[in-house]
Parts: sequence; C-alpha cells; structure tokens
Amino acid sequence: MLPDRSFFDRLADAAKAETLPRFRTGTSVTNKLAGGFDPVTEGDRAAETAIRALIEQNFPDHGILGEEHENIGLDREHVWVIDPIDGTRAFISGLPTWGTLIGLRSNGRASMGMMDQPFTGERYFADGEKAWYRGPDGEQQIRTRDCGGLSNAILFTTSPHIFEGSDLAAYKAVEEKVRLFRYGTDCYAYTLLAGGHIDLVIENNLKPYDVGALIPIIEQAGGIITTWDGGRPEEGGNIIAAGSRAVYEEARALLAR
Amino acid sequence: MLPDRSFFDRLADAAKAETLPRFRTGTSVTNKLAGGFDPVTEGDRAAETAIRALIEQNFPDHGILGEEHENIGLDREHVWVIDPIDGTRAFISGLPTWGTLIGLRSNGRASMGMMDQPFTGERYFADGEKAWYRGPDGEQQIRTRDCGGLSNAILFTTSPHIFEGSDLAAYKAVEEKVRLFRYGTDCYAYTLLAGGHIDLVIENNLKPYDVGALIPIIEQAGGIITTWDGGRPEEGGNIIAAGSRAVYEEARALLAR
Repeated sequence: MLPDRSFFDRLADAAKAETLPRFRTGTSVTNKLAGGFDPVTEGDRAAETAIRALIEQNFPDHGILGEEHENIGLDREHVWVIDPIDGTRAFISGLPTWGTLIGLRSNGRASMGMMDQPFTGERYFADGEKAWYRGPDGEQQIRTRDCGGLSNAILFTTSPHIFEGSDLAAYKAVEEKVRLFRYGTDCYAYTLLAGGHIDLVIENNLKPYDVGALIPIIEQAGGIITTWDGGRPEEGGNIIAAGSRAVYEEARALLAR
Repeated sequence: MLPDRSFFDRLADAAKAETLPRFRTGTSVTNKLAGGFDPVTEGDRAAETAIRALIEQNFPDHGILGEEHENIGLDREHVWVIDPIDGTRAFISGLPTWGTLIGLRSNGRASMGMMDQPFTGERYFADGEKAWYRGPDGEQQIRTRDCGGLSNAILFTTSPHIFEGSDLAAYKAVEEKVRLFRYGTDCYAYTLLAGGHIDLVIENNLKPYDVGALIPIIEQAGGIITTWDGGRPEEGGNIIAAGSRAVYEEARALLAR
C-alpha cells in the first residue's frame, strides 16, 4: 500500500509542530561536530522522531533513511527518505528558506515527495505523477519552465564555497554563462525550479536525504535532475537540476569539461 | 505633522497591491539598462507611484527621494525615502526576501521606517523611538542581540561579487572571522539583524533609498548602522550594520585596515 497526500500532510504537520516553535528563538543551536560549525537543532531531531513514529505505525514494512537517526531496512521495496530540516544554517539565521523534506523511494527510484516550509506556509507535493504547490498565493499543479537556453537562465546554488578544485572550475564555467545567479537557498531553490520561477540548480556533495523528496517534485513538474555525469540522483553527490532539456544539456556540457 | 504607523501601513498596503500580484508571474521583468541585467518590474514603478500619491495627498510639504521617479524637495524638513522593491533579483527569482522600503528623514536624519515583505506577511516598523515586528509568528517589539563577539557572529551580505579590490579584501577579512556567513538576502538581512536573529550585515555601494527605511529600524532596535568609516549612513555607500557594539567595533577595525 502506498501513502496518499493526506498522509504526507500528517508527516509534515508533525514535523512542523517540532520545528516552527523553535524557529527564530535563538536558543536551540548546538554543534554536531566539535570545532566545526555544523548546527543541528533540537527541532531537527524531534521532527525526524515524529515523522518516523507515524511511518512505523502506518507502514511498518517500509524502510527509513533519515539524517538524524539510524537507517532501517534500506533494501525494502519502499523506503522513506527524510531530512527534517534541510537548510539548518538558514534555520538558525531566521531565514525561511529551509524546509522539511519527506520522500518515498520505490524499488530504488524516488517516486513521491513533499517539501514543507512551515513559516511561509508553502507545501510542494509530488503524488507519483504530478507535482503540486500550496501556499499563500493559492494551490495549483506546477510545471517547470523553458527559458530558452543557458544565457537566459537563473541559476541558484547554496554557496560558491561548497565547490573546490575541478568542481569549482566546472561550476564557474556555468555561472559565467547564465543571466543571473544567486546563492544561499538550499531546498527552496529546487522548489522554485519546480514551480517555474528559476531554471537551474547546481550543487555538490549532497546526501541522499538532501534530494530524496525533491527528485519526484522536479521530475513530476517536468524538470530534469541527475548527477553531473547524467546518472540517477537518488544517492546524491554532485547534482544538477534544470527546468528544461536545453538548459540541462548546455549546463551539463560545461560541467563535464 | 508627522505620520503614524497607520499611515505607513497605508503606504505599504498600496505598494503591496502593485507588487504581490506580479510576484512569481514570470512576465514582468524588463531590463532597465540595455545590455546589462538590471531588472525592474512594472510593480516597482507602480508601487512607487502609489506610495507617492498618498504622500503628496497627505503630506504635500514633504520631500520625496525614490528609486524609480524624480526626487522632490530634498532640502525640506521631512523627506520620504522609498525603494518600492528592494531586492529585484530576489523578486524575479520568486524568492520572498525582497521588501518594500519606506523611510522618513527629518532634518537629514533617518527617523521612521517600514520594511514590508508582503508574501510572508512580515512588516517591520520604527516609530521614532522603538522598533516593531508583525508577522506569522506574532507581533512584538524587537531588539538586536549581542552574540558576544565576531567569532560568534552570523554575517550576511548580498553576494561576494558586490566587492572588488580593497573593498573585497576588507570584506574577506571580516568573513574569515565570523562563525557563519551567508549570501543573498538584500533588505531581509537588515530586518533579521533588527529582530535579533543575525549579528552583522556588510555591503557596499548602497544608494540612499537602499538604507533610508532600514536605519531607524536597526537603530531603534538597539543596533548600529554606519558607513565603513563610521559616518552616518543616510547617503548610503559602504555600509556596516551590527547588533552590538562589540561586533561592530571588531568588524569595523578589520574593514579599516
């Protein structure tokens, strides 16, 4: 049995009850790694716990891959892929571009997913065939856009600092060609792409839970998301997402040099 | 006679009626400068027109300094300083970190101001003595925070690409010392600072209308905003804003090298 939208909504609501009350309180930041700045909030852990409890209760034969707790049954037919707060740095800065990511993989392929931004009240959902948006500006099916080519494209990435060496050179080759580039948006960038507002997202070193929920939202909105070398994106790594085939091909040719 | 909050609200509402319906439509981008990418939307122009009409009707003896239309009476006792859409690149990318900036200068000094983000429903206001926030998470007086020092600070700037030459070196000297830095938020960064969520904003080449509304919001929340060399910020230029004296002094010492 597969979950429906209302079950995804229950998961996102359960996460929201843990995350939103801790947003902009300035008191819930801890360091995951001593010495480095890898913040994770109590909300992150509590939200994943809440999501897992509902999954285990309703879909006990499904596996779970999460950011904060131990993985369960990754070889099962259906596996949930969870990042309770994607964009923890945005979260601790008070910036509402973080999101709760809840994806479902079936037979290794990302098939359904939700991204929830509880502060703005925006919720994206891929139901297995189509992608949907609900937010302050209404509810609608969403489609990526075709801006024509790379020279017209709006490109987002988290930060130029995420790239080093040959990755940096490859990224810069694309950045030089686009109409407009912008930094600092985490999962919010992928949903803007799915909604047809921007054209390209390029990032590297992503984890499976960073993209698990976003893959079906982008693909079912008509977009393309793969690794830089054109492979399936379910395991993360270096990721490119584009709103149209033309932009995707142009950008990937530059990344491959 | 000075305006009250309800008059500022009327101005922000009038602007919102022109900006929000054009947000995320993907159809309202034009190039201000041929060749370059300096987008300005119909909403930008229409919002400033709407704001000016209300000011001229209610405060005919006040001056007006705006981004989009001709300046009026800059030598008058009270001068309005308007940026109808600060963060046009965020606006055209669908990212709700742009804002409508409405400031009032009295005898050359920024004294009252409002920043409105109509998509998220967040509105900041400086009434001449105190700074206030209204948004999805309630209404409250706001205060900047004291994070202790630069090594604990969260720093925001629009993009590292805004800096060149000695400005870039100065900016980088600060960026290297902070706990966390983040790009790409325009006026939203200054209001996060006023709200006590982040600690430092550093930018350069700002126009008077980029900061006119933000100066009183930051100062009346207990923060500090000046030019890099410590002068009054009303005319824009290279700007530093900090939540506490300690962070301000440390950062400015690095900028001054």
